[in-house]
Amino acid sequence: MPSTWGKIFKVSTYGESHGVSVGVVVEGVPAGLPFPEEEIQKDLTRRRPGQNDLTTPRDEEDKVVVESGVFQGKTTGSPILLKVNNKNTIGSDYDEMAHIFRPSHADYTYSEKYGHRAHVGGGRSSVRETIGRVAAAGLARVILERELGIQTIAWVDSVGGIDSLISESEYPVSRDFVDQFPTRCPKKTTNDEMETLIRKLRDEGDSVGGTVKAIVKNLPPGLGDPVYDKLDADLAKALLSISACKGFEVGSGFGGTRQTGSVHNDEFYIEEKTGKVKTRTNNSGGIQGGISNGMDLVIRAAFKPTSTIKKEQKTVDDKNKETILQAKGRHDPCVLPRAIPIVEAVINLVLVDAYFYQRALQPKWFLKYANLDSIPNQ
Amino acid sequence: MPSTWGKIFKVSTYGESHGVSVGVVVEGVPAGLPFPEEEIQKDLTRRRPGQNDLTTPRDEEDKVVVESGVFQGKTTGSPILLKVNNKNTIGSDYDEMAHIFRPSHADYTYSEKYGHRAHVGGGRSSVRETIGRVAAAGLARVILERELGIQTIAWVDSVGGIDSLISESEYPVSRDFVDQFPTRCPKKTTNDEMETLIRKLRDEGDSVGGTVKAIVKNLPPGLGDPVYDKLDADLAKALLSISACKGFEVGSGFGGTRQTGSVHNDEFYIEEKTGKVKTRTNNSGGIQGGISNGMDLVIRAAFKPTSTIKKEQKTVDDKNKETILQAKGRHDPCVLPRAIPIVEAVINLVLVDAYFYQRALQPKWFLKYANLDSIPNQ
Amino acid sequence: MPSTWGKIFKVSTYGESHGVSVGVVVEGVPAGLPFPEEEIQKDLTRRRPGQNDLTTPRDEEDKVVVESGVFQGKTTGSPILLKVNNKNTIGSDYDEMAHIFRPSHADYTYSEKYGHRAHVGGGRSSVRETIGRVAAAGLARVILERELGIQTIAWVDSVGGIDSLISESEYPVSRDFVDQFPTRCPKKTTNDEMETLIRKLRDEGDSVGGTVKAIVKNLPPGLGDPVYDKLDADLAKALLSISACKGFEVGSGFGGTRQTGSVHNDEFYIEEKTGKVKTRTNNSGGIQGGISNGMDLVIRAAFKPTSTIKKEQKTVDDKNKETILQAKGRHDPCVLPRAIPIVEAVINLVLVDAYFYQRALQPKWFLKYANLDSIPNQ
Amino acid sequence: MPSTWGKIFKVSTYGESHGVSVGVVVEGVPAGLPFPEEEIQKDLTRRRPGQNDLTTPRDEEDKVVVESGVFQGKTTGSPILLKVNNKNTIGSDYDEMAHIFRPSHADYTYSEKYGHRAHVGGGRSSVRETIGRVAAAGLARVILERELGIQTIAWVDSVGGIDSLISESEYPVSRDFVDQFPTRCPKKTTNDEMETLIRKLRDEGDSVGGTVKAIVKNLPPGLGDPVYDKLDADLAKALLSISACKGFEVGSGFGGTRQTGSVHNDEFYIEEKTGKVKTRTNNSGGIQGGISNGMDLVIRAAFKPTSTIKKEQKTVDDKNKETILQAKGRHDPCVLPRAIPIVEAVINLVLVDAYFYQRALQPKWFLKYANLDSIPNQ
Repeated sequence: MPSTWGKIFKVSTYGESHGVSVGVVVEGVPAGLPFPEEEIQKDLTRRRPGQNDLTTPRDEEDKVVVESGVFQGKTTGSPILLKVNNKNTIGSDYDEMAHIFRPSHADYTYSEKYGHRAHVGGGRSSVRETIGRVAAAGLARVILERELGIQTIAWVDSVGGIDSLISESEYPVSRDFVDQFPTRCPKKTTNDEMETLIRKLRDEGDSVGGTVKAIVKNLPPGLGDPVYDKLDADLAKALLSISACKGFEVGSGFGGTRQTGSVHNDEFYIEEKTGKVKTRTNNSGGIQGGISNGMDLVIRAAFKPTSTIKKEQKTVDDKNKETILQAKGRHDPCVLPRAIPIVEAVINLVLVDAYFYQRALQPKWFLKYANLDSIPNQ
Repeated sequence: MPSTWGKIFKVSTYGESHGVSVGVVVEGVPAGLPFPEEEIQKDLTRRRPGQNDLTTPRDEEDKVVVESGVFQGKTTGSPILLKVNNKNTIGSDYDEMAHIFRPSHADYTYSEKYGHRAHVGGGRSSVRETIGRVAAAGLARVILERELGIQTIAWVDSVGGIDSLISESEYPVSRDFVDQFPTRCPKKTTNDEMETLIRKLRDEGDSVGGTVKAIVKNLPPGLGDPVYDKLDADLAKALLSISACKGFEVGSGFGGTRQTGSVHNDEFYIEEKTGKVKTRTNNSGGIQGGISNGMDLVIRAAFKPTSTIKKEQKTVDDKNKETILQAKGRHDPCVLPRAIPIVEAVINLVLVDAYFYQRALQPKWFLKYANLDSIPNQ
Repeated sequence: MPSTWGKIFKVSTYGESHGVSVGVVVEGVPAGLPFPEEEIQKDLTRRRPGQNDLTTPRDEEDKVVVESGVFQGKTTGSPILLKVNNKNTIGSDYDEMAHIFRPSHADYTYSEKYGHRAHVGGGRSSVRETIGRVAAAGLARVILERELGIQTIAWVDSVGGIDSLISESEYPVSRDFVDQFPTRCPKKTTNDEMETLIRKLRDEGDSVGGTVKAIVKNLPPGLGDPVYDKLDADLAKALLSISACKGFEVGSGFGGTRQTGSVHNDEFYIEEKTGKVKTRTNNSGGIQGGISNGMDLVIRAAFKPTSTIKKEQKTVDDKNKETILQAKGRHDPCVLPRAIPIVEAVINLVLVDAYFYQRALQPKWFLKYANLDSIPNQ
Repeated sequence: MPSTWGKIFKVSTYGESHGVSVGVVVEGVPAGLPFPEEEIQKDLTRRRPGQNDLTTPRDEEDKVVVESGVFQGKTTGSPILLKVNNKNTIGSDYDEMAHIFRPSHADYTYSEKYGHRAHVGGGRSSVRETIGRVAAAGLARVILERELGIQTIAWVDSVGGIDSLISESEYPVSRDFVDQFPTRCPKKTTNDEMETLIRKLRDEGDSVGGTVKAIVKNLPPGLGDPVYDKLDADLAKALLSISACKGFEVGSGFGGTRQTGSVHNDEFYIEEKTGKVKTRTNNSGGIQGGISNGMDLVIRAAFKPTSTIKKEQKTVDDKNKETILQAKGRHDPCVLPRAIPIVEAVINLVLVDAYFYQRALQPKWFLKYANLDSIPNQ
């Protein structure tokens, strides 16, 4: 099972819900960086379940453990192992699912692909897998913030039929602001509606989907690589690699396909104050030809309703017999609130790798756009 | 500029519109395969422009040239160079764009990223880049058809505001059927409406976007790898790596986010005739947990309106001055019809690599699902 | 710091002597394999120091810990984290080396490359780094033994000026046989001479180098890939990636350069009993054109004397001042005996990856050469 | 057949002697570099056969053709296709080898691995494969010379039993100096002896092996990556990936294994004139812990005698029958002189990739060691 991401800032994740720990080996980290353990912990804490009654009641502490690559508080350039130990595993909840395939879950496909399947907690398909990525991305985020001033912010844009309709001028200013809302939809009225819907579905043993929007501010022009590794192509893969994600858009996305070119094209102009090239609209979502153009990066992703629900469902078992499933266990009625830090994580992993690759090949670009004072000395 | 795709069936493409040729080196091809030059040529011919008045009038022959890896009509296991020589380059059409950035095109971002930019024909951002991928994918397609019976079919689903609303029962049965329609929207009434709209916009010097739908039939369960290399994640990257693509969905996609889990989940059952596990609905789009489940794979992609239009547009030049652009040259008023073979190509590149990877690790799966008679002898 | 190896059976190692643990994430492991924890432990135990008075007196238990990828005693196909916790770290022995560069060690080059250096225990350059590889290779070894019957055996061929002159007919029959000799030179008289030399140099605070020979028996023809990933090229890299290794030979190696082609060429013949193609001599060392030819694979590697010695040495410090170093700490007077399991490990990592790659592309080869009964069912 | 090399400056080669062309796609080239076509041609010309009567009499022009990635004389950052068209192929010489396996050649192993084999000219195992690498490396060489002042020089050190015994103080000062000697052994007396031996063996239909020595001057400290991608490990793989190479040494190599640490260790001191850290001896060969230490890099490689000889040899055919082979065709009696530019090429490919990787992660190192004036502007 391929489990590596990135060309230079390369992460290799491991771990399932039933194992001892979940984590990541990060190679391609510059030496001499003050190791931001607190920042990484902050990101892991934002990701963990049990933060309010809208998500799964499992209470996992998710304390980061660092087992290599750091010496006297600084990175050494060596691979860094970050992990979180598993606990609070209630295996018996999964017993009846050992031989029954949950509809729309990964149970059946794992069986066909691998034969041998870890049914407890979903094995590798468990959302705990994202811990490794969130930990590694915490490090990526700090590098991007220090050296380029980049800020990545995601939020819940819709849940079920409830759209927040947050416009560009209302985009949240920080991750902290988003976190003030239990649903992570940063608009009071919509948040409240969503809370009501999620609680209702939870009580009915059902679930619901939604969409996430994410922006990246202060992104310099020049990141991303034409053809295969376009910034939006890498972001699409990153987003779709999150469980339950079924769709991705950049800029105008599907909506823009209904427009004519003369309406859709983003007119360039020179911003008076800064002398910088800007566009009046941002249908491109900050990316043109696969490369960032200096405007805010804007993407949107679709997350389907959680497939594990308590309502009775018809299905089949691993003896090829039809049967009825009524799932037990603790499941999120709506993954959207918890998806936010994961979405930000995968975006930051894409960006840091694009940054290091560009730095390798176009050092004059680096000298122009990076904050040299923040680069570790040698 | 990273230009490789794949882990085992690995393609490295090269070439721009202004250069001598565009093409691809394919490594990871099994030895002993009858080399399907005619099939590859067929795919390239479907891709080339000038096939009717809806696309750019450039008449490029796009004849495939094979420079290595084949001996006495069979593959040798060595890398295969496939290429098409460029011709009919009308460089002067691009002269005025040497210093002016086309809105929503890759001109400005290439300049910021690389400094030095090949303005003629868009350089590497030219759609001619896809020739290498389509050629390599022709080979992939033949392997998938021979060994697994897989069939990939894409078509135009909507153009501008015109939706074909083709339902599952109306999905086209073959690529040839799709090709009977000039717009490659395989529904007579919608095709005619689209033709009218595209001609009108062409005459106005404008352009329009649209969506593509693609299915893969006879896909066995078990392809695709959890976490990073999920089948849908790789497909999302593949689609977004096509110029002008701004969105991707698998199965129910964005629409499914409005549903509850109990409605959205795909109920499993045993198909009486075959004894196979099937699902009654296909909101999963044939992929669960990143792995194919044996149902048709169904994806959808959004293509924005062509950015190069003849209508006058405000923009800036490479001296940071605002200016007016009226583009010359030959441009597609709508890329959708020509995108079809490219979409199929990138899908087949993803599938063949997932197949070879699975074959490497789970040979019993291979013995169960592949047509062994079609495997070259040794 | 790139720390991954392999295309399909891919290992990512991490860890330094001063950290919490050293280990490896292994991806690309087939699902359904009975997990050979005991075999892995056996390999780690062979690798650990303190087994007799010829090696460093550090007594490390090196107990393998498995944190993912195994369920109910079988592999799941998910990445497997194998690690060994560090202990018995005597940091103060390294204090004086914090600012002084040991001659011929990695101290100075790490400083120049990374700026920030973990001086304790040599950081990532510590031989403890090999734990991750030996653990991963234990798994590889079991796969190779089960499915292809391959057996990899290495031994000490020379120490200092003492050559064992073990001829082809005297090659050891098993790893257990080699382990009966404290120096791992499987010839009683030479072993005794070597023991005496090593003890003498240890008492003088000095060290000595030597060579290792390794063979792989029952290797089928067809492994290894022409051009870059030739089997001998990958083995050369694998060997040289072990600390202190300074040379590599396959077959006749440097000696063969003195011969004429008519003498050096390995005559092919048909072995009567088996009908198999064999060669009368094996100057090729079992590899022709980068591909195994069915004869025993034979390689040889040079290991320099341990650079950390107790004798006084002139050197410089990190303030660019010349100084005198008298190293403390526990160091191997001769790395050769302990290098044996590491050499076998890196060979097996090369072989398993070549095997899986060949299996991906030439399944008829797989059906011809592999023991299908040993392949996990699905 | 994997045919890519490098992490950032990545080359993908293709081509066999019987095909239309041989060449390479180079990705990871910085944009804005004046394209050094003449320098690349110079390297290809040094590589081609027929330069004097010591090598194969085939007269191949080997003119480089550039089909992409260059615009108005500068690189664009896009992949660069470099190739040489094949000609002068005398296929009939190979007819009798269609079914007979040449001893110690790749014929038998290709057959077992791939089943289908291009016997004409050796297929992918032909030395013409190196054209792609030499062309790509010409570009790498120019980057290394411009930006770091690095100079790579190789020469023939021994042929058969004739050793040049060129000491460190006699190392040749330039590639041009080496080229003054027909054997490329830059010592008049030895060169003459070698010429006599090679001509004698050629006339007898026999061949002979030898060794190559190579140095890299002005290499800054800090290149190469610990563990797997050690500079010497990558060089070992690079050298062994050249056909006929059977051994590799760095620094003292096999000879050093006979010494004690106190003799072998390279004492550090401060060079008065420059204040730089130097070593008094260079047994490390310029590499410590896998990282360059600022001293000359010194390596040595063993090349076996050419396996294709005109003398009669016993062998087997592809029907598993024993037979006699008397090869026709044009073959080098000694590959050593022609190996020199290939050895330099693979070294430079390793160095440029290590340089770009280090530049990606440790930009302060880059600012300290690179000639910033030579970096293309943006």
